[in-house]
Amino acid sequence: MTRLCPVLTALKASVGIPDDEPLIIAGPCAVESESMFDETVQMLVEHGIRFVRAGIFKPRTSPFTFQGMGEDALEVIGRVAAKYAVALVSEVMESEQIPILSTVASVLQVGTRNMDNYALLKRLGCQPLPVLLKRGFMADSKEFFLAAEYVRREGNERVVLCERGIRTFESATRNTLDLNVVPIARLATDLPIIVDPSHGTGRSDIVIPMARAAIAAGADGLMVEVHPNPPKALSDGLQSLDFERFAAMLQEVRAIYAFVGEGGR
Amino acid sequence: MTRLCPVLTALKASVGIPDDEPLIIAGPCAVESESMFDETVQMLVEHGIRFVRAGIFKPRTSPFTFQGMGEDALEVIGRVAAKYAVALVSEVMESEQIPILSTVASVLQVGTRNMDNYALLKRLGCQPLPVLLKRGFMADSKEFFLAAEYVRREGNERVVLCERGIRTFESATRNTLDLNVVPIARLATDLPIIVDPSHGTGRSDIVIPMARAAIAAGADGLMVEVHPNPPKALSDGLQSLDFERFAAMLQEVRAIYAFVGEGGR
Amino acid sequence: MTRLCPVLTALKASVGIPDDEPLIIAGPCAVESESMFDETVQMLVEHGIRFVRAGIFKPRTSPFTFQGMGEDALEVIGRVAAKYAVALVSEVMESEQIPILSTVASVLQVGTRNMDNYALLKRLGCQPLPVLLKRGFMADSKEFFLAAEYVRREGNERVVLCERGIRTFESATRNTLDLNVVPIARLATDLPIIVDPSHGTGRSDIVIPMARAAIAAGADGLMVEVHPNPPKALSDGLQSLDFERFAAMLQEVRAIYAFVGEGGR
Amino acid sequence: MTRLCPVLTALKASVGIPDDEPLIIAGPCAVESESMFDETVQMLVEHGIRFVRAGIFKPRTSPFTFQGMGEDALEVIGRVAAKYAVALVSEVMESEQIPILSTVASVLQVGTRNMDNYALLKRLGCQPLPVLLKRGFMADSKEFFLAAEYVRREGNERVVLCERGIRTFESATRNTLDLNVVPIARLATDLPIIVDPSHGTGRSDIVIPMARAAIAAGADGLMVEVHPNPPKALSDGLQSLDFERFAAMLQEVRAIYAFVGEGGR
Repeated sequence: MTRLCPVLTALKASVGIPDDEPLIIAGPCAVESESMFDETVQMLVEHGIRFVRAGIFKPRTSPFTFQGMGEDALEVIGRVAAKYAVALVSEVMESEQIPILSTVASVLQVGTRNMDNYALLKRLGCQPLPVLLKRGFMADSKEFFLAAEYVRREGNERVVLCERGIRTFESATRNTLDLNVVPIARLATDLPIIVDPSHGTGRSDIVIPMARAAIAAGADGLMVEVHPNPPKALSDGLQSLDFERFAAMLQEVRAIYAFVGEGGR
Repeated sequence: MTRLCPVLTALKASVGIPDDEPLIIAGPCAVESESMFDETVQMLVEHGIRFVRAGIFKPRTSPFTFQGMGEDALEVIGRVAAKYAVALVSEVMESEQIPILSTVASVLQVGTRNMDNYALLKRLGCQPLPVLLKRGFMADSKEFFLAAEYVRREGNERVVLCERGIRTFESATRNTLDLNVVPIARLATDLPIIVDPSHGTGRSDIVIPMARAAIAAGADGLMVEVHPNPPKALSDGLQSLDFERFAAMLQEVRAIYAFVGEGGR
Repeated sequence: MTRLCPVLTALKASVGIPDDEPLIIAGPCAVESESMFDETVQMLVEHGIRFVRAGIFKPRTSPFTFQGMGEDALEVIGRVAAKYAVALVSEVMESEQIPILSTVASVLQVGTRNMDNYALLKRLGCQPLPVLLKRGFMADSKEFFLAAEYVRREGNERVVLCERGIRTFESATRNTLDLNVVPIARLATDLPIIVDPSHGTGRSDIVIPMARAAIAAGADGLMVEVHPNPPKALSDGLQSLDFERFAAMLQEVRAIYAFVGEGGR
Repeated sequence: MTRLCPVLTALKASVGIPDDEPLIIAGPCAVESESMFDETVQMLVEHGIRFVRAGIFKPRTSPFTFQGMGEDALEVIGRVAAKYAVALVSEVMESEQIPILSTVASVLQVGTRNMDNYALLKRLGCQPLPVLLKRGFMADSKEFFLAAEYVRREGNERVVLCERGIRTFESATRNTLDLNVVPIARLATDLPIIVDPSHGTGRSDIVIPMARAAIAAGADGLMVEVHPNPPKALSDGLQSLDFERFAAMLQEVRAIYAFVGEGGR
């Protein structure tokens, strides 16, 4: 599966991920305290993870639930990132947040609810950081790929696609992780595509098999939620892996990535 | 069906719509030129319409299609609105547009793709104009009603809900206009709800029966696209009514509104 | 709205429904006992209803819930139907049931789960009774209309389409009643189309507004569940109207049908 | 991944598939002629395949398209199966077909459109052959697993589940292959589950990556369409693999199956 994907190659090189390893972004759903974030990042670094997700602002369906620490989290996150020398991936919810997030983040994430916020996409096309574009949970593949073009035509070519589940009538999972979009993206675009099995399923008990499946389908990497103590997480605890299961997942997906990379198509 | 809905009553009173008439917002999908807009508004006023939709910025799935006249349209629109003394309804796509749109618009519209742009909703909660909140095409009714709360809890109570079609597997229509949400909204909220059969179906040949059905289901009004010459429209021509059919629709929905208002519910 | 629809005209004539009245099929979800069925049919006849739904076999998602009285119900149902001289509409679940159901039923119903049971459809095309074809809850309009052709090409032209809700991501209703299919059917086929707001919503508190809306959209009639005591029904009690609300619904939909028939399109 | 699944173990043993190999069912969408079927089965046997799909009756959305060879195919199919000593998997569309299909088939398949044809499921519970139950394209996982119970409670425990794609709003694929159901089935049932990436995607250019992904997700096997000359197939040619790509797929999925079986969970 020799694949010419300059955006992927450059992104891996920028943080020292070897070519034969997948691009893994991991971390807690929200930064709840400095100690829990420090503990998590330390573990991630020990396992060779270079990209850490650090949610500062949280988009929530209801205005009455936990909304993230907000700007207070910035200092905490910056301190921990510097201590372990990791690159941060943070979600941007409106154009005004771009400057302040850029002081700590290495990659700016567009969440599923903003995939068709074209005003925001255009602004992200005019700034220098790479953009992680999550698929709208009701977007078909064509709309997903066209959203990336809103960023690129403004001049910023560094877009990474991220499948994170679509809405269907299935009720056993929070969303339906759609792995079909992985081989379709490889045929239809020249952008990297990663998969988020945590949000895509909402169930930590099926995250590992779906992570394996994503890599087997040809994904360039994963975005995974990990938490020191999932049952006590302030948000999305049901879908977070604990440290032990994260390590197990990592071993399996690295092996399948290597296999697909050599023998796969 | 005596219904206590202060937001609706105040909105109708502000522009002189009688209590026994539905709240109709009509106009072209996009303002293409001063003459087409003038001609359309003149017709609307002759039929007693007080709210005119005036699209300035257009959110489009593809960055490669017509994106609206943008700020150049403001002057044209303001001139025509003043000439005919109508109230304008304009879509706001990002917080930065609020001040400039407020110079001409009487109602600010949130489009389907921004229904869960919570940052924008909060900003609209802190300004004085009423907000027309379109349902996300992927939102269930609970998410729709919760989105309105993002505006209201910041202090702006004047939110009008607007059903505009959801995404399903049906391919004969652009979206599936979901009228079930109308009686559900009447049971679950104290906000007015109107229906947009133009975007909701994408087919002008079924707009009239669906407009009748919306009012029969208990909707407080309609948002309808009308164009002097639909086949030549720069966007959404397939779903726009011409003047003659608009007049026919108006007569039918006013009769059903009066009937439902007296004997219905 | 003068509409040339010979199947509809003949069906109404066969039981004495006037041309300016909608085709209403009403009755309990399942026949639970002779007394409850007798009481219900008596009320229906007093309101001029000529078609009574009489569920004998019940298709249920789980094999562990109430499955209907089965063939024991046949004698009961036949006796009551003869007493009040009503025409029965009964669901057929497999070809083997056709002969026995034909001894009491005047119309054979195909349920939503059998809409694409092509073997059954073909058999129904080779027998003389009219067929009420319910839309598959995941079928688009084209598949729905093509299913009717499976019956007709075998020689039986008397098919009545029935919209009964499609599956979407909405959770406030059991299904999403899709009224768009009504005007589409009028444009695309020469068959009558009726609407079932009881199954289509699963909530008796919105059945009346959706029944009004269905007729306003141009439906030729309705199929409605009614029960002497909905909270005590053995199946689908939540969606059944009691006698008082059924009478209220009837008055409203007859008025709208008359209005749409004269002035509507 | 030591998994106690007696139905799977017995089924593999009955035709001599080793425990460390996946259960593969392959063959053409429809048997078009004896020579094309013979050529295909010969190739399959050379690659160690023991279960051959042999469509005799074809359910089609439109009554105006190719409907399969019907009973004429029986003799042809039986002759080829005997020549190569393979076990046949054939779809049963109505109860009346069970006796005649049982003269040649070793496994009876229930198609997606019949998953909730409960009358048929009950009949299959009263006969001795194993049943391959395809998921309804509109069924959620719970309905899928409950459908299997309709067969089992009549006495036939030998049911194999088969994911084959669900209907979503995505238009780049014919259906959306839902791999989430694989780990869910392993948690919620004791039945084997296989995946059909051919119908599930409708595109032969993504069948191989999705086949890999299915096995990586924990599927017990695959059902795959293969055709000597896909562009000339009378039905479903777009989704069939040619012989060369089938062989490539087989090698990859066997390797991943072995890996998941040892190290996976």
